[in-house]
Amino acid sequence: MIIVLRPKTTAKQIEHIVKKLKEHGVAVHVSKGTERTIIGAIGNESVISELPLAAMPGVEKVMPILKPYKLVSREFRKENSIIKVGKETIGGKKIAIMAGPCAVEGRKRLLAVGDEVKKYGANFIRGGAFKPRTSPYSFQGLGEEGLKYLAECREKTGMPVVTELMDPRDTEVVVKYADVIQIGARNMQNFSLLKEVGLTRTTVLLKRGLSATIKEFLMSAEYIMSQGNHNVVFCERGIRTFETYTRNTLDLSAVPILKKESHLPVVVDPSHGVGIREFVAPMAMAAIACGADGIMVEVHQNPEEAFSDGDQSLKPNAFGQMIKDLKAIAKVVGRTL
Amino acid sequence: MIIVLRPKTTAKQIEHIVKKLKEHGVAVHVSKGTERTIIGAIGNESVISELPLAAMPGVEKVMPILKPYKLVSREFRKENSIIKVGKETIGGKKIAIMAGPCAVEGRKRLLAVGDEVKKYGANFIRGGAFKPRTSPYSFQGLGEEGLKYLAECREKTGMPVVTELMDPRDTEVVVKYADVIQIGARNMQNFSLLKEVGLTRTTVLLKRGLSATIKEFLMSAEYIMSQGNHNVVFCERGIRTFETYTRNTLDLSAVPILKKESHLPVVVDPSHGVGIREFVAPMAMAAIACGADGIMVEVHQNPEEAFSDGDQSLKPNAFGQMIKDLKAIAKVVGRTL
Amino acid sequence: MIIVLRPKTTAKQIEHIVKKLKEHGVAVHVSKGTERTIIGAIGNESVISELPLAAMPGVEKVMPILKPYKLVSREFRKENSIIKVGKETIGGKKIAIMAGPCAVEGRKRLLAVGDEVKKYGANFIRGGAFKPRTSPYSFQGLGEEGLKYLAECREKTGMPVVTELMDPRDTEVVVKYADVIQIGARNMQNFSLLKEVGLTRTTVLLKRGLSATIKEFLMSAEYIMSQGNHNVVFCERGIRTFETYTRNTLDLSAVPILKKESHLPVVVDPSHGVGIREFVAPMAMAAIACGADGIMVEVHQNPEEAFSDGDQSLKPNAFGQMIKDLKAIAKVVGRTL
Amino acid sequence: MIIVLRPKTTAKQIEHIVKKLKEHGVAVHVSKGTERTIIGAIGNESVISELPLAAMPGVEKVMPILKPYKLVSREFRKENSIIKVGKETIGGKKIAIMAGPCAVEGRKRLLAVGDEVKKYGANFIRGGAFKPRTSPYSFQGLGEEGLKYLAECREKTGMPVVTELMDPRDTEVVVKYADVIQIGARNMQNFSLLKEVGLTRTTVLLKRGLSATIKEFLMSAEYIMSQGNHNVVFCERGIRTFETYTRNTLDLSAVPILKKESHLPVVVDPSHGVGIREFVAPMAMAAIACGADGIMVEVHQNPEEAFSDGDQSLKPNAFGQMIKDLKAIAKVVGRTL
Repeated sequence: MIIVLRPKTTAKQIEHIVKKLKEHGVAVHVSKGTERTIIGAIGNESVISELPLAAMPGVEKVMPILKPYKLVSREFRKENSIIKVGKETIGGKKIAIMAGPCAVEGRKRLLAVGDEVKKYGANFIRGGAFKPRTSPYSFQGLGEEGLKYLAECREKTGMPVVTELMDPRDTEVVVKYADVIQIGARNMQNFSLLKEVGLTRTTVLLKRGLSATIKEFLMSAEYIMSQGNHNVVFCERGIRTFETYTRNTLDLSAVPILKKESHLPVVVDPSHGVGIREFVAPMAMAAIACGADGIMVEVHQNPEEAFSDGDQSLKPNAFGQMIKDLKAIAKVVGRTL
Repeated sequence: MIIVLRPKTTAKQIEHIVKKLKEHGVAVHVSKGTERTIIGAIGNESVISELPLAAMPGVEKVMPILKPYKLVSREFRKENSIIKVGKETIGGKKIAIMAGPCAVEGRKRLLAVGDEVKKYGANFIRGGAFKPRTSPYSFQGLGEEGLKYLAECREKTGMPVVTELMDPRDTEVVVKYADVIQIGARNMQNFSLLKEVGLTRTTVLLKRGLSATIKEFLMSAEYIMSQGNHNVVFCERGIRTFETYTRNTLDLSAVPILKKESHLPVVVDPSHGVGIREFVAPMAMAAIACGADGIMVEVHQNPEEAFSDGDQSLKPNAFGQMIKDLKAIAKVVGRTL
Repeated sequence: MIIVLRPKTTAKQIEHIVKKLKEHGVAVHVSKGTERTIIGAIGNESVISELPLAAMPGVEKVMPILKPYKLVSREFRKENSIIKVGKETIGGKKIAIMAGPCAVEGRKRLLAVGDEVKKYGANFIRGGAFKPRTSPYSFQGLGEEGLKYLAECREKTGMPVVTELMDPRDTEVVVKYADVIQIGARNMQNFSLLKEVGLTRTTVLLKRGLSATIKEFLMSAEYIMSQGNHNVVFCERGIRTFETYTRNTLDLSAVPILKKESHLPVVVDPSHGVGIREFVAPMAMAAIACGADGIMVEVHQNPEEAFSDGDQSLKPNAFGQMIKDLKAIAKVVGRTL
Repeated sequence: MIIVLRPKTTAKQIEHIVKKLKEHGVAVHVSKGTERTIIGAIGNESVISELPLAAMPGVEKVMPILKPYKLVSREFRKENSIIKVGKETIGGKKIAIMAGPCAVEGRKRLLAVGDEVKKYGANFIRGGAFKPRTSPYSFQGLGEEGLKYLAECREKTGMPVVTELMDPRDTEVVVKYADVIQIGARNMQNFSLLKEVGLTRTTVLLKRGLSATIKEFLMSAEYIMSQGNHNVVFCERGIRTFETYTRNTLDLSAVPILKKESHLPVVVDPSHGVGIREFVAPMAMAAIACGADGIMVEVHQNPEEAFSDGDQSLKPNAFGQMIKDLKAIAKVVGRTL
């Protein structure tokens, strides 16, 4: 930690700060420049970062040197984490394709769309049984019934199931049916939920919060890993900016950055990222081109009839066309689909 | 709902859209302009808004006319809601002053700071027993023990208790001790939690999410009210923008806007809004000047020793000075402290 | 234009609005719903949009139907515009590669880097002679001297010159040497400058403003075209968001959106988009994958010695490696390099 | 400057960095920690900040210690700058009230509104003769004719004139008529224009850019001052965020921050800040409460007829009512109107 002092800090103030630091077992190095005095505090950065140093008289600013995350970092683990989910993997050479409806709307519809996406090349089925909705008057999902249909789809197609968990009290039931637990964007900093899924050993697909920095995204993964569950997958799904044309602004630069900072896999969700059907395929192409380990897209046989997110759902044949293009891009970057 | 069609939409496509709308009991009015055809859909807007109209062939954009919230709106209730909490009120002529430490750090410290803020003019004690922290390695709060100290402080001072609830499973214990349940910014769209507090009758202080629009803020209050709990208070605490000087950007324009759109009270938290001690008082002054019904600030006897948020906590005497100034501003806008 | 009235608007107020609209030659259609009355105003939208309709008593909101841009729109011109610049083109099958130093730093350096980027596959040389710098104490560019070196580089390599114009008073001298005039992000809404370059016939590379919406970006191109110059190229270079890891957030979704809304070519600048050397290549790959017509990158033989933007400049051999990868991606999307 | 090195930086790399720094006359202090080595570079920070240190092998991040602005800073000048404009001042005990139409629309209208705002308490007349408009098809202002009407208004009322300059070529004509040159938000980083007004001695009202950080805002003022013109006034007018209810998000925390960092006066423009007439007065109240030195508001006799910004313009009597309330607030904070 570097502590920059104000121009006219007194010797007594400096002494006070040094004393406080030493009380916490921190090695201290004071360096007096012509315009500013700087204190270098060396020791356990996680201890130091807890101290309200900026509150001490004479302190102008405090600048951390080390990163606050450990288990998720590349320094902790040099090789890419390849996460096994049933017979599939996320993070290896093969790119994961997660497809399905926004919400599970009924048994028949789900099984039909499962067959379709499987046929065109998906290897994970996605669908929400518990749905976070901004309006209390909107469709809230089928609950456990929806989870059962997802499990049935897995039986039929062999595809592992990706589905959202919203409430810590539903952890047991979701773990019972899901292969991958999705933590939605609005819950990226729901710390109770993060701890809960950290106690399971089910793979967690952690979606980036609407206003989460990459550093906070990494910290939320650290929450899960710190509880013992190392099967975490990042999902970039767009951030909130001033732009209103798109539903969100898909931040694809997060892909190579997360791959550099962390050993965990990174999946991209272009459906929520742009929110407009015709731009899903080009953004999926771009995601693979810059190094994503997977793509998650919403597919619906009849988007006009969808209970939610119809505007951004692909029809199965458009999904199939996209997969063809993704295969060609994947080859260029040394991956397969 | 207004549906704007693309330039060359066919008669068949128009017919299809009209048919879909009518199937849902919606009255339809088609109006053909020189450049665009427009369809007006009149009926239950909450039904119409669920239809994936933008997914239909020929549709260029869909523009809602009515607001998606009802119970929170001024149209639902014309007069200001005045919420009774113990012997205090929020939303009446008297401005609520909620003060106390970020986290409850121990019995002695809490009781001491409670006495101090009471002396200087606070009428609510605040303090977190369950703390949302971005790092899993940071202090997480004292839990029920902290709640007990808060209750003891209430016994001693008469001030109602404001404290955060993070996990739906803790609702019962928090309700047992708290007079006002705080829903933190990161949980503003934790819909499970909103529903849960909606089922209680305890007053809820709902903090605005870091990237929540005012409309979404209103919708989250609607979630709570839709479950039967009408004791909801908004708390503007800053939004996330590109500015890095401050911790957040305090959006004071939200105060008069919320007061116009809704009958519910609005409190401002300048401590989190700016995150720097010396700017807390001027922003509190500004908040009262533009119509806030209350202020929530962090006060700590010795910010240097605070377990969290020391940088933005006021010392008791600075709090006292601020209260004096707030009284004078309150008088100008026809309020009391 | 759709005008939504407040719930209790009086007949007199409606009459007043209708009268105002008719005075401006606008056809009016009033439609009374159960909860709201709506007025449809049909006519010259650019006239209507000038009227302060929201200022009229009884008006709740005003929603435009038509787009405010004409000449830049796909509706104005169905085919892609292919802009000829010397022997090169922008917007055709061949992807434009604009490379060179941030600033022209001297004759020898420029000619050397020009040879290098040419060798590796660039077909435009870029370099600033007039530099916008946030500090008045930073290097401000070589001015006309720099332009002369660029022209010399063109003589030697055959590559057309891309260089920035910052001041309308320098238009003549820049036009004398440049093949493509760059309008920087901070000048995207410098309307005097836009009009000035609109009066030339030199190709304009218009960079997106840091906080410009896609609609505003289109409007700025409209400014240039409205003066008669139809040789306009968009350049997405990142927008400002809350994220601090990257210099900007590169909004690649703008690429397919601009290609849909407009017939003009779209170039991507990943160097400014991310601001970190190692992420330039993956973002360039992504840009081509989602349909960009060109890439503009900063290349410097010795970034450590660069007068500006050294942190984001590629070395020539890294540029060469990137070009190889871009060629493979280009092929997948039916383009060449 | 603090330079943090990567974990495994070699001795040779460190040597190289130290050598580079010493070549530029910088004193260097290397401090080896257990996890990171840190280099402190002490010397002329403006020289150091020009070096592309982050481009050097082994460097992880570079953290500036000193602020990049000098002349605008409180350290440069301890007392508040009080700027004289005709018989008025900005920055002293008396709060400046700048009022008038968005654009000068004609002689008669301007003189009439000038009389009105004077009567109600304004002491500066504002109005645009050169108008920056997002559409090339919108009203662009009356040019010099408009400036003449403003000068006539000054003759009649004694109020100094505030008017916008958009093009460096118009500097002479604007200086001829204006007492305060306004630099609009979209030109805050139009460095050619900043330099030009820096060469005059006319007071400059510098509006904050839509996506400008407070630090950049200070740097733009530094640009003007570095040319010799020390008569600079900041104007906070809202920043662009994700919120769409308001035209911009008025960042009132910028007021006390600018007052702390700089000795220059700070004016607030609530009209553009919120863009909705009914919220102008509460935000003006808040601005005075948190320490603003002035308010700039749009006033129009008949907003329905305004050529621009009618939606946010106050009518004269509403302006008068606001002034009464501002007087009471000003008194509380030890100011007068």
